[in-house]
Amino acid sequence: MTDQADIGLIGLGVMGRNLVLNMDDHGYRVAVFNRTTERVDEFLAGEAAGTKVIGTHSLEEFVASLGRPRKILLMITAGKPVEDQIDTLFPMLDRGDIIMDGGNSLYSDTERRVAELAEHGIHFVGMGISGGEDGARYGPSIMPGGSQGAWPLIKDLVQDIAADAEGEPCGDWVGSGGAGHFVKMIHNGIEYGDIQIIAGAYDVMKRGLGMTATQMQPVFVKWNEGRLDSYLIDITATILGVAGEDNVPLVDQILDVAGQKGSGAWTVTASMDESIPTTLVAEAVYARFLSSMVEERAVAAEVLSGPPNAITEDAADVIDDLEDAVYASKIVSYAQGFMLFRAAHEDLGWELEPGTIAALWRAGCIIRSQFLNEITTAYRIRPDVPNLLLDPFFSEAISEAEPGWRRSVARAVSAGIPVPAHSSALAFYDGYRSARLPANLIQAQRDFFGAHTYELIDRPRGEFFHSEWG
Amino acid sequence: MTDQADIGLIGLGVMGRNLVLNMDDHGYRVAVFNRTTERVDEFLAGEAAGTKVIGTHSLEEFVASLGRPRKILLMITAGKPVEDQIDTLFPMLDRGDIIMDGGNSLYSDTERRVAELAEHGIHFVGMGISGGEDGARYGPSIMPGGSQGAWPLIKDLVQDIAADAEGEPCGDWVGSGGAGHFVKMIHNGIEYGDIQIIAGAYDVMKRGLGMTATQMQPVFVKWNEGRLDSYLIDITATILGVAGEDNVPLVDQILDVAGQKGSGAWTVTASMDESIPTTLVAEAVYARFLSSMVEERAVAAEVLSGPPNAITEDAADVIDDLEDAVYASKIVSYAQGFMLFRAAHEDLGWELEPGTIAALWRAGCIIRSQFLNEITTAYRIRPDVPNLLLDPFFSEAISEAEPGWRRSVARAVSAGIPVPAHSSALAFYDGYRSARLPANLIQAQRDFFGAHTYELIDRPRGEFFHSEWG
Repeated sequence: MTDQADIGLIGLGVMGRNLVLNMDDHGYRVAVFNRTTERVDEFLAGEAAGTKVIGTHSLEEFVASLGRPRKILLMITAGKPVEDQIDTLFPMLDRGDIIMDGGNSLYSDTERRVAELAEHGIHFVGMGISGGEDGARYGPSIMPGGSQGAWPLIKDLVQDIAADAEGEPCGDWVGSGGAGHFVKMIHNGIEYGDIQIIAGAYDVMKRGLGMTATQMQPVFVKWNEGRLDSYLIDITATILGVAGEDNVPLVDQILDVAGQKGSGAWTVTASMDESIPTTLVAEAVYARFLSSMVEERAVAAEVLSGPPNAITEDAADVIDDLEDAVYASKIVSYAQGFMLFRAAHEDLGWELEPGTIAALWRAGCIIRSQFLNEITTAYRIRPDVPNLLLDPFFSEAISEAEPGWRRSVARAVSAGIPVPAHSSALAFYDGYRSARLPANLIQAQRDFFGAHTYELIDRPRGEFFHSEWG
Repeated sequence: MTDQADIGLIGLGVMGRNLVLNMDDHGYRVAVFNRTTERVDEFLAGEAAGTKVIGTHSLEEFVASLGRPRKILLMITAGKPVEDQIDTLFPMLDRGDIIMDGGNSLYSDTERRVAELAEHGIHFVGMGISGGEDGARYGPSIMPGGSQGAWPLIKDLVQDIAADAEGEPCGDWVGSGGAGHFVKMIHNGIEYGDIQIIAGAYDVMKRGLGMTATQMQPVFVKWNEGRLDSYLIDITATILGVAGEDNVPLVDQILDVAGQKGSGAWTVTASMDESIPTTLVAEAVYARFLSSMVEERAVAAEVLSGPPNAITEDAADVIDDLEDAVYASKIVSYAQGFMLFRAAHEDLGWELEPGTIAALWRAGCIIRSQFLNEITTAYRIRPDVPNLLLDPFFSEAISEAEPGWRRSVARAVSAGIPVPAHSSALAFYDGYRSARLPANLIQAQRDFFGAHTYELIDRPRGEFFHSEWG
């Protein structure tokens, strides 16, 4: 029995390999398997040389190497590969065994798998993991959810390998069913928003102020020392300093076509299901779609008119306003993300505590930031605040940033530089703080053409009226 | 045999009743059935008195009353009611019979139903119908798609009862599978956009210029005489003139909470599936979600700061710019809608000809307009134009409107009035006409934290590179 592994991992991609090494560092004995078994040998001869890692060359050998109850972490592609792997593993497992899915599976698939495997006494855990290669190796953010009975059995492992934020592990149970992958999905959706917010600021500096990558770098370095202190701002500064061929900044040589792998789009679909306005994620995903139309854009640039992009105001002022725009847009984006949690919490019956979730993202993951410390604090002080924008810290912070943010958006609009994340965030902010929106006209139109009825401002909610308008 | 009905209709809601009367006007003998059979009697004693309509009081009687092959039009709620009705009807039908679903079913459900019923030789048609009560009564826009073999058998009926646009019927076959309901869904998505665009203009006049409903009415009347000539502008003008209690404009008494029934959200989900940036529909749907948070908005209005809404510039200039904003935003919105058609055409194997679809929307439906005549003409002259924004008529029209549109958005942004549809459309326009977007930075970031690779501007597409950035 002493030779048996504490945990098994299937899928030796870079994330899988780094998680194995991370677990090994923390004293866990890990068995590994990969469909292409050469990868197992390469790993044992290479990165895993000198570790306690057990290489296996068949699924049978892999399963036999695991101590009971078996704990198996899948680090394979979401969708059919996960489905097939579960089907193959299933007959080899016993009641009480645990399968963890560490990929980016769709939360509704996870919800279904938890229920299906529970019928056979097998625990299934959707385990959101963020942090990229480095996070996996030295401490990611881990968001497990699913079969509740698994948690006591995996808690130590999860918290040992997770990142540390102010003495607390960035790994905790987020809820039942598909909650783990739902939380990871929202993390990724917010990541889309953060990235697009930064891209807009970069574009205004580049096209509006004519700054080079080298000239922009100190701006991001400085931003990273203040309220925008975060991994994504930090790596942006690093990226801007990397030279490519002929000593031209590498970023300037990269094609402006941004890929996406689905979790942003899933977040938008979930927002539609839950009736929550996550405008930042949607605009960010759409901006990536638009980026991919690179040939059409080249034609359109010749045909469609607009003003000169150059901004002639004082560059330092423009950059100060941009910092406000980035910060305020971020606040709106996170407020929207947490609105979606709250709705899912109520609608899908999950135990999604915003304070717990914010805490998990403070370190280890791609969106880690000083900002998330502040969100964690806000939700710990006032767990029931209906919206992050109504929390005193954030309502004050965004109100302070508002004039610069607004100038920045108006300036980009006037200069013909698209800042869809900044402008959509501002439209949301202005809509959210509108005691009265023009939706009264919309209801009148809907009642006119489709007899959809309307409510009245001086009557109780739930009384519906119809008029013959024509 | 001579007593038998030409067609049967199930579901005597207002749309169903009006379609029956419309068919009766055109000489068709229609059998009707409704689950609550009192509705049948009421209809025959009321609106249908003196017509050839045959009332039936059981599904058996209904089916027996129909000539062969049977043609049955369902005008019932989408989802489970449609599913259940098909299940109940199915054993009573014979090969060659036709079921038409005239509701707003999800196109993927229709796609499945077409395939399932085809196995039994029954034709299923997803029949998008737009026009509200009046359209149903006097000529709607009809978008049938599904089992191709049904079309010769229903074509005369469809085209007889449809609206007429410049001598052409607004009813034509749009494609196989779920194409009919897909087209109707996009119609509705575009309708969401049109409505939000108008709501933004209304809000700027109301909050920015302090205009009353009565003062705004002539603006919409005038707009309706020019390039914005459309049903929705027309009914807006009418609505603004309707007085409620105490002679206060009724629109001012209506609660600013806009409902929605799902097809806008479905359009957004489809746009995510097809990777097409339909930003206008998304912002419009999100604006409705935001409108429903009426209590939270009242709190936020007290807490979150912003500038005074008042616009002090010359009102006539502001209104001229608003007209440009409405027109240009509409062009973007329709361009995005047709992008989604093109993608679905290629991806889902449907025969969605943009010129055919635009032609169907010229009359009868909620989005009918002079504008759709111009889109029809554009696509008939250049069916292969890759994007409506690149068609000479529209590229010129939007370039002419662009300065006023831009001033209008910048003005609303500066005044703190949310115009999410206008501003999102402009961000899309500025992105679309950008030969170079900041997506190069996004790809650098993605490669930095996730080894997602990037392409280079001076290398062929499809060559992917990775850097060690850190």
